[in-house]
This record gives sequence, structure tokens and C-alpha cells, in this order.
Amino acid sequence: MQHQVAAIGGDGIGPEIIAAGKEVLDAAGERFGFDIAWTDFDVGAERYLSTGELLTEEDLRELSKFRAIYFGAIGDERVKPGILEKGILLAIRFHFDQFVNLRPIKLLEGAPTPLANKGPEDVDFVVVRENTEDFYVGIGSRFTGAREQKTLEVVRDLYNIKFGLDVETDADEIAYQIGVVTRPGAERVIRYAFDLAAARERKVTSVDKANVLSDVYGLWRDVFNQVATGYPDVATEFTFVDAVTMWFVKNPEWFDVVVTPNMFGDIITDLGAMIQGGLGLAPGGNINPAGTSMFEPIHGSAPKYRGQDVANPLATIWAGSMLLDHIGEREAARAVLSAIEQSILDGFVTRDMGGAKKTSEVGRYVASLVKRA
Amino acid sequence: MQHQVAAIGGDGIGPEIIAAGKEVLDAAGERFGFDIAWTDFDVGAERYLSTGELLTEEDLRELSKFRAIYFGAIGDERVKPGILEKGILLAIRFHFDQFVNLRPIKLLEGAPTPLANKGPEDVDFVVVRENTEDFYVGIGSRFTGAREQKTLEVVRDLYNIKFGLDVETDADEIAYQIGVVTRPGAERVIRYAFDLAAARERKVTSVDKANVLSDVYGLWRDVFNQVATGYPDVATEFTFVDAVTMWFVKNPEWFDVVVTPNMFGDIITDLGAMIQGGLGLAPGGNINPAGTSMFEPIHGSAPKYRGQDVANPLATIWAGSMLLDHIGEREAARAVLSAIEQSILDGFVTRDMGGAKKTSEVGRYVASLVKRA
Ligand SMILES: CC(C)[C@H](C(=O)O)[C@@H](O)C(=O)O
Ligand SMILES: CC(C)[C@H](C(=O)O)[C@@H](O)C(=O)O
Repeated sequence: MQHQVAAIGGDGIGPEIIAAGKEVLDAAGERFGFDIAWTDFDVGAERYLSTGELLTEEDLRELSKFRAIYFGAIGDERVKPGILEKGILLAIRFHFDQFVNLRPIKLLEGAPTPLANKGPEDVDFVVVRENTEDFYVGIGSRFTGAREQKTLEVVRDLYNIKFGLDVETDADEIAYQIGVVTRPGAERVIRYAFDLAAARERKVTSVDKANVLSDVYGLWRDVFNQVATGYPDVATEFTFVDAVTMWFVKNPEWFDVVVTPNMFGDIITDLGAMIQGGLGLAPGGNINPAGTSMFEPIHGSAPKYRGQDVANPLATIWAGSMLLDHIGEREAARAVLSAIEQSILDGFVTRDMGGAKKTSEVGRYVASLVKRA
Repeated sequence: MQHQVAAIGGDGIGPEIIAAGKEVLDAAGERFGFDIAWTDFDVGAERYLSTGELLTEEDLRELSKFRAIYFGAIGDERVKPGILEKGILLAIRFHFDQFVNLRPIKLLEGAPTPLANKGPEDVDFVVVRENTEDFYVGIGSRFTGAREQKTLEVVRDLYNIKFGLDVETDADEIAYQIGVVTRPGAERVIRYAFDLAAARERKVTSVDKANVLSDVYGLWRDVFNQVATGYPDVATEFTFVDAVTMWFVKNPEWFDVVVTPNMFGDIITDLGAMIQGGLGLAPGGNINPAGTSMFEPIHGSAPKYRGQDVANPLATIWAGSMLLDHIGEREAARAVLSAIEQSILDGFVTRDMGGAKKTSEVGRYVASLVKRA
């Protein structure tokens, strides 16, 4: 069995961690009888700085031939915040309609957690973050004259009326940003969360802020309630995003599957990363069940460690385990996750986790554990 | 010296905790030579349910006569989420243009924190949350036909173009929410943060998400940079909201003054509450330096404990300390905070903090400590 997988190393430590991840996934193939044919894509800051290109039509057409993309990281100190994130990472998520951002929050045996009195049995849930709507749609404006001119005028009018202000200057004084939630957009991701919960502990927690952002999250809650009727044996719960940040820290054991709109998902999954041992141990999947999905560590490109072979590859390797699961190699996926756990228990880790090993050494070690699985 | 202060007990445990708080503030007056004349306002769920009134013009006119409002909590299981929050709490914040939401994140001696290896010396910063703009402006729509009709159409068009969709039905299928940042709105709160930092450890951290919501937070960052030039000896730092949730948990000692737009402020201050010992110990001030300000515990009304004299009054008492500070009674404010700390060290606390004392007993005890200060 051969799997075609695309790889984007990207910037900073990206290429190194992806190299380590590939080594582990290849080892899993050897052990479990499949083969991965990798196709590398040159995407990231270097290319952008030398050619001005982020992702071309051609890139997207080529990427669309794959069911899975293995993604390192993007971000470079020479490029303004937002350019690479929007032009590459978000562009892939949106173009391929990867509407689920799947984030396991699981504290592995031996992994460090900043929480007092919590262990692996307490921290084991999944966040399903909506990945194509909400405040990530990129609709907003700061200056007039754009095609959003008409909206800007309406916003300014509403704003002036509301606050009795008189903001009139047309540049640089007022900015707006629009979030959008649609029924089909909410429904598909909420359904995904319920399906997942049905196969786990049968509880879904919705995280929103319907008491203040009532329009978008009112619709979200209605859709949630409607989807829930189809899953009578799954327990449900509504929470507000502010409160949930407390419970993640205080009572992580309460959660099974958490479903949330895009922006709150961004925030609470980073908090989740921390309680599961930090960014060095946090993977994410960007999933379109019927199309091209992407798997990545959720940390960034850490430019200052570039080329030093010191970055922690475990989040990337874990993302690789999710990738294997996604393409149907379930057993191999489980073996890779066990091997990560074993390498932590063995203290065979990089210095951010208190060890002395290099990126490539950890990759090789986890690969060797997988081969012996 | 007499101070006129308005009091709103509100719903659930609100009246009990405000009663305890008043007792402490009165004691502080006795000890430090001033007198508080309280004027109570009947606002909350009961009144709403029997008269349909939330806050009337008359209420607002009366409240406007005070420099400070001492606020308990609102929220009732018989009222739909959003009604009381928007109609009372947010209405007061917006009407009185309380543009600073001030949240000390300070772990008192003896207070429990869920963080391993962190103590009072590590957790001591202040969050300055913008309190009148951003996604809290209440501009959005879910159905057509409202005065936001024109905007809804524009949003729908942009959305359809962007995603090649064709959302046409006019009800219940699409919702949008608009956030607004203005230059003067950002400037005043950022300036407040810098002034605060100049009197503390001289560091201001901005929390935003300018890499994705670039319009509103791009303007925010520009204003931040501009204000910063006026404070050459204050260090500055930009962070993304997702990352900051990790650092609050992992490295709270990094922060001095944190300034952030409204919605992210809502989220990170609850997380901050948790690291300082939970909602039972988290106060907030809603400040208009030139107008009517409001001080409140940041927890809710906990309807199920109503009338049982078991709620923890310490957050409310701490809010009272902030109120005293605001009206110029600095020494009294410090004495109240010390008394709170002492009551925790003495184990004279309610059951949520592992004690056995009642709300009223804790109030009386803290009041007695203040009298002896
Ligand atoms: C890099 C950034 C655009 C991205 C996001 O906000 O989604 C990241 O924080 C994440 O969570 O994957
Ligand atoms: C009750 C709610 C409207 C309020 C807010 O979102 O501001 C609360 O969470 C707070 O932080 O004061």
C-alpha cells in the first residue's frame, strides 16, 4: 500500500521538525506494511522574499491531489505579522475548506504540566475548532475606498448613532472587523463533534459568548441544539469562553469533546496546549473529511533556533500520528503516539523538556521505538 | 468627609455579598475618618420579571450623580442569557463610558492557586481591558429587516463572493457580528495603561490578534506604538491572545500591565482570576476617571446559593477596596486589602476556600480586622 503525502517544511525550525516526523512515519510504514511517497513543496518566507509568491494557483492545484499535507511552521522576522499566516496557513485551511481544526488535549505519561495535582487521567479531551468562519473570514476594513466602502459607511453610521459620536474622517480613525456564522458552516462542525463524542465519553461542550455576541453565537447555539436532537445519548453543555479558560485549568477532567467557533478555538487550544505540557507537545489537524487535510504542530517557526537541531519534534511527530490515523493507518498511528510517550518516559527529549537530545536524535529514537512496536 | 456611593445588590448572592462589602467599607470609614452614605438601587431580575424594566432613563439619571457604584451580580435562571448582562451590566459600562476595565491579578498570601510552583511573588500584574468598543458594541444581525439590513446585504455579498457560496434565504441562515476600534477609543485606554505602568514596574504588554484580525487590531497596534513614544522608559511588548493564555499559566511573573481590547480582555481576565485563586477572589473596576465608575466582583450571581449566606464575599470586599482607592481613600483601600489577606491566612473563609464560615461572618471578621488596622 502506498500513500501520497505532501510536505511543507516552511520556515525556521519547520524543515528540521518535518524531517524528524517523516523519519518516524517512514518507520511506521516499514513496521506496519505501507509506504509513504513524499512530495515536498517549497513554501514560506524565503520564497516569498525572493519571488513575492505565497501560494500560487499552481501550488493549490498540485496540493489538491493529496489527501494529506504534513506541515511544519511558517513565520519569519523579516515578514510583517499576518502576511505568511494569512497567505499560506489560513489560505490552505480556507481553500481546501478544512472546516475542522482538531486538537487533542491529552497529557501523556511523563509529560510536564504546569497544573498542580493533575495527571494524565485528568487531561484527556478533544477540541473541535470551527476552521473556516467566524472572525477569521478576513472581512473588515480600516480605510475607506476599498470594496467594503459601503459597509464601512454603514458601520460608521451605526457607531455614530449608537455612541452619539461623530467620526467623520475617512482614514485611519476607525476600523471594523466582521465575523460570520452560517447555518451550514456551524452544522457540519458541530455534527463532527457529536460523531466524535459518540465514539468517546459521549459529552459535547459548546464554548461561545452568546450572552454578548448574540447574533453569531445565538445562531451557533440554535444549530447546536438542533444537531443535538439527533444524538439523544450524548450529554450537552453550553459554556462561555471566559469561564471555560478557568475550567481548563481547574477541572480539565470535566471535558470530553469541546466544540467552538474559530477565534475562541484559537485561544482555548493554546491554553489546552499548555496544560498538556506546552507547545512542544501540541499537534493539530485541519480536516476536510472529503478533501485535502493538513496536519501540523501548533507551535510556530521559532526562527532563532533555525538550523540548530534543537527544536522539539514531538508535536510534529504527534501531528504525523494524526495524519496516519486520517489516512486509515490506525494501528501505526497508535504505535507512533505510544513511541512519543515512551521517549518522554525514557527522558529522551530535547532541552525545552529538560533533556539533552537533538531534534534529529529524538526523531531517530522515536522511529526506532516504532520499528520495534 | 462624606462619600456618596450607589449600591446595586442585584440577583442571586448579590445582595448578601454587597451587604458584607458595605460592612467592611463602613468599618474602614470608622477607622480612617470618613463616612459613606449609601443609596441602594433596585435593579435586577426580580424587577425585570415583574415590571419589564432593566435600567430606566430615571435610573441612569440618578446613578449619574455618583462617582462610584458598588455592584453585586446579575443573572437569573428565569431570564434568557444576555438580557440582564446587556440590559444592566453592559448598559452601565457603556452609558457611563467606563472605558477602563481594571483587573488586578494578584495572588494573595495564603490564597490557593492551581499552578504548580508559583507563589504570590510570581503573580502580581494588572490587566487593563478596553470596556466600550471591540466586539461588545452590539452591532450585528441575524435576520434581515432590521436597521442593519444594508450591512447584512453587504456582508452576505462579500461572503458569497469570498466562498463562492450562494446564501440567499433571508432568515436564520447567516449571522454577522461587527467589532469596532476607533483611534480615540484605543488611545485613551492605552494611555491609561502606560500611566499605570509608569507607577509600577514600567512594562506594558499589548494582547491582540493582529496577525488575523488585522483591520481592528492593526489600528490598535498603531495607536499603541504612537502612545508608547510618550513613555520612553516604559518597556513594551506585543503578544497574540492565544499565546498569552499559555504565558499566564506558565510565566505569570513576566507581566506588569497588560492592555487589551474588550473581548480578549473578558477571556484573559477570567483566566487571570483562576491563577490568583479563583472567582471568589477576583474583583474588577469599570472606570471612567471623569465620571461614574463601577466596582464589582467578576463572578456571577450563583442563583443556587441565594439566601444561604454561604457565598464568598472576598472578591466583593476587594472590589470595595478598589472603590475606596478610586474615591481617594488610599490608606483605607490598602487596609481593606491587607485585612482580606489576613482573613485568608487565618483560615477565616467560606467553604469554597476550604473554610466553614458564612458570608456574613467573613464580612464581620474582615471589618473587625480593618477597624484594628
Ligand atoms: C498562526 C495563526 C494564524 C494560527 C491561527 O490563529 O489560527 C495559529 O494561532 C493556530 O492556532 O493555528
Ligand atoms: C457578564 C458578562 C456580560 C461580562 C462580560 O462579558 O464583560 C463578564 O463576563 C465580565 O467579564 O465582566
